[in-house]
Amino acid sequence: MAQNRREFLKVAGLAAVGAVGAGLVAGCHGRRPQEGPVVEPGTDTLTTPEPVIAGPRRMKLRFYPYELQLQHTFTVSSYSRTTTPGVQVEIDYQGFTGYGEASMPPYLGQSVDSVTSYLQKVNLHQFADPFCLDDIEEYLESLSPGDSAAKAAVDIALHDLIGRMLGAPWYRIWGYNPAKAPSTTFTIGIDTPEVVREKTLECAGKFNILKVKVGLDTDKEMIETIRTVTDLPLAVDANQGWTDRYKALDMIYWLRDHGVVMVEQPMPVGSIQDQVWLKERSPLPLFGDESVQGVDDVRRAVGVFDGINIKLMKCGGLRNAHKMVDLARALGLKVMLGCMTETSCAVSAAAQLSPAVDFADLDGNLLISNDLFTGVTVVDGKLTLPPTPGIGVTKL
Amino acid sequence: MAQNRREFLKVAGLAAVGAVGAGLVAGCHGRRPQEGPVVEPGTDTLTTPEPVIAGPRRMKLRFYPYELQLQHTFTVSSYSRTTTPGVQVEIDYQGFTGYGEASMPPYLGQSVDSVTSYLQKVNLHQFADPFCLDDIEEYLESLSPGDSAAKAAVDIALHDLIGRMLGAPWYRIWGYNPAKAPSTTFTIGIDTPEVVREKTLECAGKFNILKVKVGLDTDKEMIETIRTVTDLPLAVDANQGWTDRYKALDMIYWLRDHGVVMVEQPMPVGSIQDQVWLKERSPLPLFGDESVQGVDDVRRAVGVFDGINIKLMKCGGLRNAHKMVDLARALGLKVMLGCMTETSCAVSAAAQLSPAVDFADLDGNLLISNDLFTGVTVVDGKLTLPPTPGIGVTKL
Repeated sequence: MAQNRREFLKVAGLAAVGAVGAGLVAGCHGRRPQEGPVVEPGTDTLTTPEPVIAGPRRMKLRFYPYELQLQHTFTVSSYSRTTTPGVQVEIDYQGFTGYGEASMPPYLGQSVDSVTSYLQKVNLHQFADPFCLDDIEEYLESLSPGDSAAKAAVDIALHDLIGRMLGAPWYRIWGYNPAKAPSTTFTIGIDTPEVVREKTLECAGKFNILKVKVGLDTDKEMIETIRTVTDLPLAVDANQGWTDRYKALDMIYWLRDHGVVMVEQPMPVGSIQDQVWLKERSPLPLFGDESVQGVDDVRRAVGVFDGINIKLMKCGGLRNAHKMVDLARALGLKVMLGCMTETSCAVSAAAQLSPAVDFADLDGNLLISNDLFTGVTVVDGKLTLPPTPGIGVTKL
Repeated sequence: MAQNRREFLKVAGLAAVGAVGAGLVAGCHGRRPQEGPVVEPGTDTLTTPEPVIAGPRRMKLRFYPYELQLQHTFTVSSYSRTTTPGVQVEIDYQGFTGYGEASMPPYLGQSVDSVTSYLQKVNLHQFADPFCLDDIEEYLESLSPGDSAAKAAVDIALHDLIGRMLGAPWYRIWGYNPAKAPSTTFTIGIDTPEVVREKTLECAGKFNILKVKVGLDTDKEMIETIRTVTDLPLAVDANQGWTDRYKALDMIYWLRDHGVVMVEQPMPVGSIQDQVWLKERSPLPLFGDESVQGVDDVRRAVGVFDGINIKLMKCGGLRNAHKMVDLARALGLKVMLGCMTETSCAVSAAAQLSPAVDFADLDGNLLISNDLFTGVTVVDGKLTLPPTPGIGVTKL
C-alpha cells in the first residue's frame, strides 16, 4: 500500500510535469470563463464577480513581511541596527509553490511599506501560467517605474515555480556548469584592530577571498591588520567614497601592493569623467555598483568600468540579471554578483548565475540568525549549488 | 495488464524527468569509471579502452547527409539548381532523441564534406549530459573557428534534447508568449512579370508580408508587377547589391512609396561608411545580414544598421541566437530571424525565438518537397508554434 501510494504520487507528479509542455500553450493572456471565483492576490477575499477562474488553475500570490535578525549588530557612523526588513513572497500554481524575497537595505530607498504597496497591485490572474515571463515582467514594469526589490521578489518566485515545474534548477536550464561557481567573498566589518584581527582569523579558514569596505581614514590600518593574519586575496568596496581621482589612484596602487584584486565603485555615481580617468590608469579592475542598476546601465558602463556588480534587488530579478550577464560578456565587461542582507531565498536565486561570473559577493544569508530556507552553501569557501529544482531552496 | 504497462511507462518517464533535476548535477565534465565501453560519435566502432562509459548514460551523436528537393528550380544568373545539401544530426541520451540540422547554401562556404569532417571530430562523451551547454559550446568552438552550420546542427539537437527532457518547448523555457510570433515573409522569386504575377496571386492569400530580392535593373518592374496584384507590405533584400549610396537612398524612397517596410543588407559588407551615411538618411529600417554573423557582430551593428538578421547557420545555433536577440534589444537594434532552405527541423528551432523579433523570414521549409519533420506551421500567414517539447518537431 505504501508502495502504491508512492507510485500514485509519482504518476500525479508526472501529470503536472507533462502539463508544462502541453498545457495552456496557445497564449499567455486571457481569462477563461466558468472556472470559479476570482481571488485577489494578497488576500483570500472574493472580489470580482465577472469572468471567473478557479484558484488552483491560476497563479496565487501571497506575501508577508519578515524581519531578519542579524548575527552581529551592524554599526556605521550614523546608526546601528540588529535587524533588517524583508518581505517574503510565495506563488502557488497547480500544486507547486515558488518562493521569492524582497530585501530592502535603507540605501535602496524601498521599505516594507513600499514593497507591500506594490505587491498589492500585482494581479497574476490575468496570465495563463508562470512561463509567460516576458508578458508578466512587462506588466510588472508597467505598474511603477521603481520598486525593483518588489519586482525581484515576484520574479524570483516565478523562476522558482518554473524550475520546480520543469524539475530542474536554473543553473541547468541556463546551461551552466555548477563546478564553475566561484568562491564567495565574505565581508570583514570595519572595527577596532583587535576585533578585525579576531574576525579575520575566524574567516580565513572558511573563505578564499575576503572583502573590506574602504573609504575611511582607517583603510590602510584595516588592511594592514588583516594582512597580519592572512594572505588571502581581498576585494574592496569604496561605496563612492573617493572624491579625488589622484588620491584614489594612489590608494589603488597601495591596495594592489597589499593583495587586493578588485575595487568596487571607487568614485561617486556622478563623477563619470573622473571614473573614466581612473579606469584608464588603474592597475586593478574597477566594478560599478551604485552606477549600474539595471539592464540599460550595462552599455553605459563600457569604457567607464571594467566590470559590473549585478544584484537582483537593483535590477528587478533573475530575468534581467541573466540578460545583464550575457550583455556584459558581449560588451567585454567583467561580472560580479552581489546581494543584500537576505535569506537563503534571494541569495540562492542569485547563486544560480554564479557559474557565469568572475566574482561573487553572496554572503548575505550568512549574516542572519533566522534564515527561512536552506539553499546554496559555502564549502571550502566556494559556492555550492544544490540540485534542488528552481532557485534551489527548501523551506525550513 | 495494458493499464499496468501504461502506468509503468509513465513512472519510467517520470524517472527520466526526475533525473534532470537530480542526476549528474555535480559537474559537467569527467568520465565515470566502470560504465562500459566508449563508442565514438558517428560510428558504432569501439575505440578507446581507457575509462569506460555506458552508451545510454552518455550522449551519442549520429549524422547523415540529406539532400533537400526544391519544389521549384532555383535560378540565378550564374547557375540553376533543383536540390540543396543538408546534414541531419541526432543525439541520443537516456531514451530521448534530439534533432538538429546543418543547411549549407553555396554562399555560406560550407558543404556536406566540411560539416561531416567537423562532426566526426565532435566527442560528446566527455560531457555529463546535454544541460552542460556552456561547456559543450565552448568545446565546439575550440574545434574550429568556422563551421557555423555544423555547430548549429549540434546546438539545435542539444536544445531539442534538453527541451524534451524538461517536457517544454523552448519558447516557454525562454518565457515568450507564442501568440506574439509574427507573420513570416515569403519570397517571390525574380522572374518574368507573368510568373511574378501568378506567384504573387498564389501567395497573397496565404501570407501577410512578402519578400523580394532586389539589386537588379528589373527591381522596379518586379515591385510594380506585385503591386498590380496586392497591397501587402513588402520586405526587400538587396544582398549587398547597391554600391552607390545616392542611388541606394533614391531607391529606398521609391520602395517606401511602394509599400516596402524594411530593407536588408543594402550595401556591400565592407562599405561601412556608406552604410552609416545611408542609415542616417533612410526612411526605412535597414537590417544587416551578411554584415552580422555572430554574437560579436551585434555591437558593431550599432550606429551602422537599424536591425540585424539572425540566422542559426550563421551564428552557430540557438544559444548564440538567443543571446543576440537580448543583446540587440539592449543596444536598441531591431531584430529579424532568417533561415536557409532547410527542413522544418532548423526552421522550427529558429521559430522558437520568433515571439521576440520584429520580422521573421522563416519560409525555408516551405520551399522543399521532402521535409523530414512537422513543426512550426504558417496559419493565416502567422508563424504558429506547436506545443511539442524541445524545438517543436515530430519526425515523419
